[in-house]
Amino acid sequence: MHHDRMNEPVPAAALMALAAVLGDRVTTSRDLCRQHANAVSWLPVEPPEVVVWPVSTADVVAIVRIAAKFNVPLIPFGAGTSLEGHVNAPCGGIALDMSRMNRVVAVRTADLDCTVEAGVTRGDLNRHLRDTGLFFPVDPGAETATLGGMASTRASGTTTVRYGTMADNVRSMTVVLADGSVIETGTRAAKSAAGLDLTQLFIGAEGTLGIITELTLRLHPVPQAIGTVVAAFETMGAACEAAMMAVTSEPLIARLELLDALTIGAVNRKSALGLAEGPSLFIEVHGARATIDTHIEALDSLLRDAGASRCQRASALEDRTRLWRARHDAFWAVCEAWPGRSAVVSDACVPLSRLSDCIIATQADIRDYSLVAPIVGHVGDGNFHAIVMVDPSDVSEMARTNTFLDRLGRRAIAMGGTCTGEHGIGQGKRELLALQAGPALPVMHAIKRALDPSNILNPGKIF
Amino acid sequence: MHHDRMNEPVPAAALMALAAVLGDRVTTSRDLCRQHANAVSWLPVEPPEVVVWPVSTADVVAIVRIAAKFNVPLIPFGAGTSLEGHVNAPCGGIALDMSRMNRVVAVRTADLDCTVEAGVTRGDLNRHLRDTGLFFPVDPGAETATLGGMASTRASGTTTVRYGTMADNVRSMTVVLADGSVIETGTRAAKSAAGLDLTQLFIGAEGTLGIITELTLRLHPVPQAIGTVVAAFETMGAACEAAMMAVTSEPLIARLELLDALTIGAVNRKSALGLAEGPSLFIEVHGARATIDTHIEALDSLLRDAGASRCQRASALEDRTRLWRARHDAFWAVCEAWPGRSAVVSDACVPLSRLSDCIIATQADIRDYSLVAPIVGHVGDGNFHAIVMVDPSDVSEMARTNTFLDRLGRRAIAMGGTCTGEHGIGQGKRELLALQAGPALPVMHAIKRALDPSNILNPGKIF
Repeated sequence: MHHDRMNEPVPAAALMALAAVLGDRVTTSRDLCRQHANAVSWLPVEPPEVVVWPVSTADVVAIVRIAAKFNVPLIPFGAGTSLEGHVNAPCGGIALDMSRMNRVVAVRTADLDCTVEAGVTRGDLNRHLRDTGLFFPVDPGAETATLGGMASTRASGTTTVRYGTMADNVRSMTVVLADGSVIETGTRAAKSAAGLDLTQLFIGAEGTLGIITELTLRLHPVPQAIGTVVAAFETMGAACEAAMMAVTSEPLIARLELLDALTIGAVNRKSALGLAEGPSLFIEVHGARATIDTHIEALDSLLRDAGASRCQRASALEDRTRLWRARHDAFWAVCEAWPGRSAVVSDACVPLSRLSDCIIATQADIRDYSLVAPIVGHVGDGNFHAIVMVDPSDVSEMARTNTFLDRLGRRAIAMGGTCTGEHGIGQGKRELLALQAGPALPVMHAIKRALDPSNILNPGKIF
Repeated sequence: MHHDRMNEPVPAAALMALAAVLGDRVTTSRDLCRQHANAVSWLPVEPPEVVVWPVSTADVVAIVRIAAKFNVPLIPFGAGTSLEGHVNAPCGGIALDMSRMNRVVAVRTADLDCTVEAGVTRGDLNRHLRDTGLFFPVDPGAETATLGGMASTRASGTTTVRYGTMADNVRSMTVVLADGSVIETGTRAAKSAAGLDLTQLFIGAEGTLGIITELTLRLHPVPQAIGTVVAAFETMGAACEAAMMAVTSEPLIARLELLDALTIGAVNRKSALGLAEGPSLFIEVHGARATIDTHIEALDSLLRDAGASRCQRASALEDRTRLWRARHDAFWAVCEAWPGRSAVVSDACVPLSRLSDCIIATQADIRDYSLVAPIVGHVGDGNFHAIVMVDPSDVSEMARTNTFLDRLGRRAIAMGGTCTGEHGIGQGKRELLALQAGPALPVMHAIKRALDPSNILNPGKIF
């Protein structure tokens, strides 16, 4: 769909109009433009021509009106941590850096909600909430991910098995449409049956339908008590089987992570944790003080019955922290374990019963294509990542990586799953989306055309 | 938007085309047409001209193609239990009775999901699941509600505080579009970041964007143990305050229902339960055998601290059943308490902190307008119903009821909530939707036009 755009440079009159509204919050600096393009994936860097820093919804309205008038692409930019080229500018245009829209507008503890500007990071929000007894659970890894970006990519992560994805934790958003009009997508009520769900329409739309400027988020009570169990298994199949049993029988599971033997090895080398080097589950339980130990004991014996060769449990903060550091550091541990290589990270998500088959087939592919690719997963959701450690100058290896990732996406789709559980489509997975959606793809196109007929909003992504 | 339709009768050629596909599964019988129009609300009955009984997605495709060719409205019909005129035929046309699409296609226990045809009722599904250890939690009241209808109205109910609404429990749907094409809206993965969320677009669309023919639903493990606490309070304010405290501090709450004093009185008269006649909370906790009593005790003392004048608890099945019968029978108890009157039921949903204010202001209105209207609520979600017991022949009372309901919707919107938490817009709440959505309403219209340009799908609803 982005081929229907002419690649004209942003006209000088548009730059003047932007400067008139934003003063020095506009730049065409090559360095700054480059910093606002894709930086964390294998996709080529395609910088925008202009970067602007709005500080209010009114600023975004003015910017969108100028872009519409001059038919210039707009690319919303949060923290740049997305993985599929979402912030690239294949048709040129203006990057909207949302980082200065970073106010927490309101926290309403009695309503278990808050309203934030789109540039607030999830780390900053949780620091802001520290004394309220509440927290925002969605954890995609990057501390600096912005809540607007997380909504745009329908992010999720380690806590999704209990607390859901961004889709489950956004009540409403303020969105600026392609014509400059401003809408509120929903209300602050916990649920609504009032017409089409526009909140869910803009979540995961990757900035192609409108620019998110504010979000009202659902908050959760900080659990009274937290317990952890870490269990190592002989085989990947046994670990996946145990994960399925745990999900079905233990209602308090808040995190259920899988690390393969390669990842555990990397973590051990980085942090000297002495973990058993087999496929391992890291499980966190959130519950009540009076009963947490009972739940941890039940989980521990379930995992042993399921064949865990080694099982450690912890409820004291320092013990938990030590164990979860392994999970949190996994990506960096993997990067350090293969110095001089770069990480190409992809994800897939399949029905639980197919998880073991999917991971085992993926590992076979990794061997067959002579790749190095540790696997880490949010397996309570059937979601996992392959972290391919590549030498970007090795043309053959990059080609094999490409084929491997394509096969991974196709395998997940064939198993009734999705080519991406949490990273999004961006530029990188458009062919896989076409395969996955089939006759539903024209419906997405029809909605895009209805809301952004000139295709100025993040062209070249999803569609 | 339905005024742009001409009210032409269904042409004879269309009837012949339908009969050629469906044989005797087509009727123009006045009685049958009348049975397929709104029967349970205060809105006028507007019967369709034709009723058809598809038995497959292919049948629905054929029906939609005929309707498109002859420009005839199509009104999907589940069980006819919706409350806002969703199944009326204000522009005439064809009712699609989905009751013969009632097969459970697959139950996949390991994936915690199942696939059903749209006409399967929630009661039948749960009976089908009886020996699997799994259940489908969404409980809008009516046992006979179909899963397709529940998805179309974004239904929810007593268990939503724990298990979510239909939006949280549908993974994917098969939908026939206005041009007869068939799409699958999603996958069977627990989550996906692959493009626009079409599943959420069709949920709550009330049949205006497509005809749902199959659904893949998320299932949940039957809880090991269930406990109940019922608590009566002196005032509505105290009951609402206690509900908020319970929601924040007890993670295992699966139902949190409010019955006002009038409702408790009606229930006592019907079933001689001897409940204390004040505003009361009915709370159900779903948890593990080993810890359920600890949770029930904690909840009991929380409710007493919050001012409960009387508190009963039960974990044995017969005791629980006795107490929950009061909640389940509430609607019928109210109907019996005012014989000769009809129930006009409406709902609203507000942020938790406004629930008490909203209910108290609503009760003041009930007095001021000289109405009889017990209040029952899913207050864990901030959602409540007013059951106005009217004499439909009393023109003044009907006018006062209308004004009262309009004020209720506006009050909920003004408090940051929604004019309907679970009943939907249908014909009855279109003005309130326009008020609530404001500049977002044209976005809904744009999507409707993009997907159903001839407005043949359930015209006169939502839009």
